Amino acid sequence: MNDTFLKACRGEKVDHTPVWLMRQAGRYLKEYQEVRSKVDFLTLCKTPELAAKVTIQPVDILGVDAAILFSDILIPVEAMGMHLEFSEKKGPVLGEPVRSKSGADKLIIPDTEDSMPFVLEAIAILRQELRGRVPLIGFSGAPFTLATYIIEGGSSKNFINTKKMMYQNRGLFEGLMDKITATVIEYLSAQIQAGAQAVQLFDSWAGILSPYDYEEIIFPYVKAAIKALRKFGVPVIYFVNDCAGLIKIIRKSGADVIGVDWRVDIEDAVKKLGKKVSVQGNLDPCVLFAPREHIEDRVQDILNKAFPARGHIFNLGHGILPETPTENAIAMVEAVHRLSR
Amino acid sequence: MNDTFLKACRGEKVDHTPVWLMRQAGRYLKEYQEVRSKVDFLTLCKTPELAAKVTIQPVDILGVDAAILFSDILIPVEAMGMHLEFSEKKGPVLGEPVRSKSGADKLIIPDTEDSMPFVLEAIAILRQELRGRVPLIGFSGAPFTLATYIIEGGSSKNFINTKKMMYQNRGLFEGLMDKITATVIEYLSAQIQAGAQAVQLFDSWAGILSPYDYEEIIFPYVKAAIKALRKFGVPVIYFVNDCAGLIKIIRKSGADVIGVDWRVDIEDAVKKLGKKVSVQGNLDPCVLFAPREHIEDRVQDILNKAFPARGHIFNLGHGILPETPTENAIAMVEAVHRLSR
Repeated sequence: MNDTFLKACRGEKVDHTPVWLMRQAGRYLKEYQEVRSKVDFLTLCKTPELAAKVTIQPVDILGVDAAILFSDILIPVEAMGMHLEFSEKKGPVLGEPVRSKSGADKLIIPDTEDSMPFVLEAIAILRQELRGRVPLIGFSGAPFTLATYIIEGGSSKNFINTKKMMYQNRGLFEGLMDKITATVIEYLSAQIQAGAQAVQLFDSWAGILSPYDYEEIIFPYVKAAIKALRKFGVPVIYFVNDCAGLIKIIRKSGADVIGVDWRVDIEDAVKKLGKKVSVQGNLDPCVLFAPREHIEDRVQDILNKAFPARGHIFNLGHGILPETPTENAIAMVEAVHRLSR
Repeated sequence: MNDTFLKACRGEKVDHTPVWLMRQAGRYLKEYQEVRSKVDFLTLCKTPELAAKVTIQPVDILGVDAAILFSDILIPVEAMGMHLEFSEKKGPVLGEPVRSKSGADKLIIPDTEDSMPFVLEAIAILRQELRGRVPLIGFSGAPFTLATYIIEGGSSKNFINTKKMMYQNRGLFEGLMDKITATVIEYLSAQIQAGAQAVQLFDSWAGILSPYDYEEIIFPYVKAAIKALRKFGVPVIYFVNDCAGLIKIIRKSGADVIGVDWRVDIEDAVKKLGKKVSVQGNLDPCVLFAPREHIEDRVQDILNKAFPARGHIFNLGHGILPETPTENAIAMVEAVHRLSR
């Protein structure tokens, strides 16, 4: 059994640096596209056998050291009571954005077993099919990131509605964050109890905040969620996209592992994070469009710079892009293994 | 004559912190909208009297300490030979993206007096009409930012084409950057000779690069442009959006002033930048949607944190948003002046 990933999360000795890729189950794999051509995106997320199938594909094809449950961060938002659709062009489109107390009051804190049983079933299938080959990571959007979708009603450019609510109606915003945080805790606790061996909180949009607002308004919810989840004894990874200005704050999150995006100088991040957490990251996903030798150079550079960390899990600094040549992703994983031994 | 802005750029003593706002001439002002309702955006840029008129509006209405020429960063790109259009929905749309040697060869290094005389005429009018009331800032996109538009053909999400060229065809990319850098130098030199009393290089998209790529591939062009411009003896401001991970590199740019976005902890930035440069920034533009007291608190916080800098020019961390209530922008300027005295 390959438990290199779990060991690196805990800062234990490993014989090679473990690696997985954010969005490793995805469109850049023709095997994924084959499955996806037969069902729409949400059906794929909600059919345990299919979700499990695409989750395992990158373990077989790339040789990564961890599997991550195939799902979408908006699944629990739908379960909270918002209508969810995926448009090929615009991405996720949610029903009526929540911008008032009456809107927020309508949202519920869903019970995962009741309203998202397919997630727990997929985890059960995966644990059986993986047979300990590699650990399985569960995940959820972090509270603020889910809040932006709920308030904006989808993706956004400047997140004006979210920030307006933060600044103009703090009580409403905090009430919403309370509900979302409770949802995230329930959802990840259920994933862990169903068999997830680590969990990652994706804070894809926290990087749009000033350090002031992040620390003052958002960070208490992050810490509360992580504290509740660490009780289960599995590693908690906290990934924040565009986090270069936030690292000094994030180090106090309580997570076992901090995931950083590619805009961060990982040498600098490791210094700031100190010896109590492991680090995950952070190759620019676009480097996978470069020639093989260049990819190797960049892998080596990141391995060197992250070396002083308590533990290092190699990853991209953001999700792998759909246009990525699969053979380059394979070469990257191979290079991480070879160069870190 | 109010030369507080120029003094702060040079790190000289001032009796209050000078302030201006990126995109201060713009849609959030009804006086701007009145002018704009009669002509399209490009005509406004290219009609010296009108460009001068909207440039002065925020000096009168907000009481800012500097005027910045109203124009668009793609004006010199059009002069290099690319077709340029503005769509209300999609923003700038350029003709055939440049992705080959033949495409790059077709671009010219334009002479500003020949191909963009309207810019120089607007500056001449402005110097006369401002009569030294406040200094006039000229500007240009920085080389990499202009390159992204030229290679992507407009705005982009992941800048895959730009990075592909950087990684797969370094010679082509560098040839293009040479040409763009020469254009930027010519363009800003002409603005200075026409009367611009400071210039700002906007690197709106350099923040999408890893520190590794930024330092290795892009930074030499930044330094070359700044070095050429500093010969004229007017302050050079270098603003990089999303620069939290790049500050340790940027400090060596040679610019008189480094402008930072709102995601940066300005206290941290000031420490890293040292005593040889002034700092500009960095209120989140969305804070202008907050109640008056909150705006004041945030102004005070930034003034305190930037205080140890050689000089501080207060600004937003990015362009003011079209939806901003004008009275809040006025209140912000007033608060900067009052609280910094």
